[in-house]
Amino acid sequence: MIKVALVGIGKIAIDQHAPAITNSSEWELSATVSRRGKLPGIPAFSDFDTMLASCPDIRVVSLCLPPVPRFAYAAKALRLGRHVMLEKPPGSTLSECHALRAIARTNRLALYATWHAREANKIAVAKAWLKNKRLHKIKVIWKEDVRRWHPDQQWVWEPGGLGVFDPGINALSIVTEILPDSIYITESSLEFPANRQTPIAASLRFAHPHGADATMILDWRQQGTQVWTIEAKTDQGKLLLLDGGAQIQIDGQDTILTDDHPLSGEYANLYTRMAQLVADGGIDMDLEPMRHVADAFTLGHRMTVDPFEW
Amino acid sequence: MIKVALVGIGKIAIDQHAPAITNSSEWELSATVSRRGKLPGIPAFSDFDTMLASCPDIRVVSLCLPPVPRFAYAAKALRLGRHVMLEKPPGSTLSECHALRAIARTNRLALYATWHAREANKIAVAKAWLKNKRLHKIKVIWKEDVRRWHPDQQWVWEPGGLGVFDPGINALSIVTEILPDSIYITESSLEFPANRQTPIAASLRFAHPHGADATMILDWRQQGTQVWTIEAKTDQGKLLLLDGGAQIQIDGQDTILTDDHPLSGEYANLYTRMAQLVADGGIDMDLEPMRHVADAFTLGHRMTVDPFEW
Repeated sequence: MIKVALVGIGKIAIDQHAPAITNSSEWELSATVSRRGKLPGIPAFSDFDTMLASCPDIRVVSLCLPPVPRFAYAAKALRLGRHVMLEKPPGSTLSECHALRAIARTNRLALYATWHAREANKIAVAKAWLKNKRLHKIKVIWKEDVRRWHPDQQWVWEPGGLGVFDPGINALSIVTEILPDSIYITESSLEFPANRQTPIAASLRFAHPHGADATMILDWRQQGTQVWTIEAKTDQGKLLLLDGGAQIQIDGQDTILTDDHPLSGEYANLYTRMAQLVADGGIDMDLEPMRHVADAFTLGHRMTVDPFEW
Repeated sequence: MIKVALVGIGKIAIDQHAPAITNSSEWELSATVSRRGKLPGIPAFSDFDTMLASCPDIRVVSLCLPPVPRFAYAAKALRLGRHVMLEKPPGSTLSECHALRAIARTNRLALYATWHAREANKIAVAKAWLKNKRLHKIKVIWKEDVRRWHPDQQWVWEPGGLGVFDPGINALSIVTEILPDSIYITESSLEFPANRQTPIAASLRFAHPHGADATMILDWRQQGTQVWTIEAKTDQGKLLLLDGGAQIQIDGQDTILTDDHPLSGEYANLYTRMAQLVADGGIDMDLEPMRHVADAFTLGHRMTVDPFEW
């Protein structure tokens, strides 16, 4: 059993990380670090330094903090000889991620920048299906209600919090995983609430090497049904990924592909992969989804929209 | 003599590229491509495709276009077997630069993302001086008048034109060249004119691995004296780079270092390097300065300031 400390006990840690660790035969949840949050029966620290000093046997730190404070924790853990696993996005800037990778290399430690959305049930199926087809069009629609998924999380509106790109980077992580070709943003429209520092909506257009029509719509103001859909039209039919990759349709039909294997869960897969990286001392840090976000900001046409209040 | 076509005949091509090529014994300026601009005695094309089709003997294309249209020209040139040299910044997005590099690799052609500011006379001296010293503070001040250096260049205010980061990326290219350690942005304030899409001023703070105080001020509203200064305080004295690296002072004194070798010129150095890359089929594309710009936008605290009119 690999002992892991979970840092940042918020919604994602409680809903996803803790159950994935607890249900795994490879991992042992040995400590939590959080100003307020605790988990029943798990030694709880409010101070990261204290945990690191008190628990030399905990070799892995899994960070579920918001992106801005995350780097300092990750760098400290690596410098003190711990392997590090990062919630997405891997940092608040690309350069910070490069710096972190350099520290992990120097210290010969495992570093895993996770993209949980890539582990959704039908992503591998979609990737295999798209592999040998000619893409004509890909249309991504990611519309959710920020109040429901980030209740009172002020950091999403602060500089570095990424705004609607916090969920949007999940869509980007899927698209960059399933498409056989690289794409890049050529148009970006960003809608900033008048009283906030990060966008609440975005509309992106991408160039594709074979000229496919590639677009992405992100919106954090969605009431009612939440939409996480990727539609791909090819020379050999149409693929539809629904619910962020949980469901797949080919040419309008749920296929046998939807029942191909039992669900193990996105986060279970991430911890299985992390166990491999710890064994190998490996680094898995694909920054492509984050690079697209940075490109969207750099190239962004800014529009000011209605103020946002919780 | 290597035949080169110069594409985008504006201020930088006329002031810098054309003289550097003409004064070189390695290069021959064989064509220009521009909607309006021409150079005396040089075959002038208004259409890029026509030039490429008409001049199979021109093996190198040097692109002085604004960043947004540049990629399409670069990709086309590479796909038609030409080596490519790019003015800075190398593209309008990071992902576009990655795509271009992949095309150059596939086609086994030279690709050079130039950073002319790194070729300023005293940059190598500053780099050597800083190498074995402990940095306490670095302060970059880059203040110039956009009306003087970009007269009526509308693209600098369009999405992707980068605004004050068009000169600011020169400062970033120098800092990343002369510092022995990597830094990354932790705070970014961006001032956007109410009627423009790109910032007219920026204030950046960086984290440094040994805790040095690292800041950068960019301003495009500077009247009178233009300022391009980098001040570095170390455990062994103070370095001052003036005029974008043309002059250097150590502890307040102009030193013998200022007369160490005759000026050959920033652009002469770039074309010498490009000749090597053409010979080797090499790729020189350091994206670190551009990554910092993307980080500044991603992490930026946006402020709206007075409208800008030419």
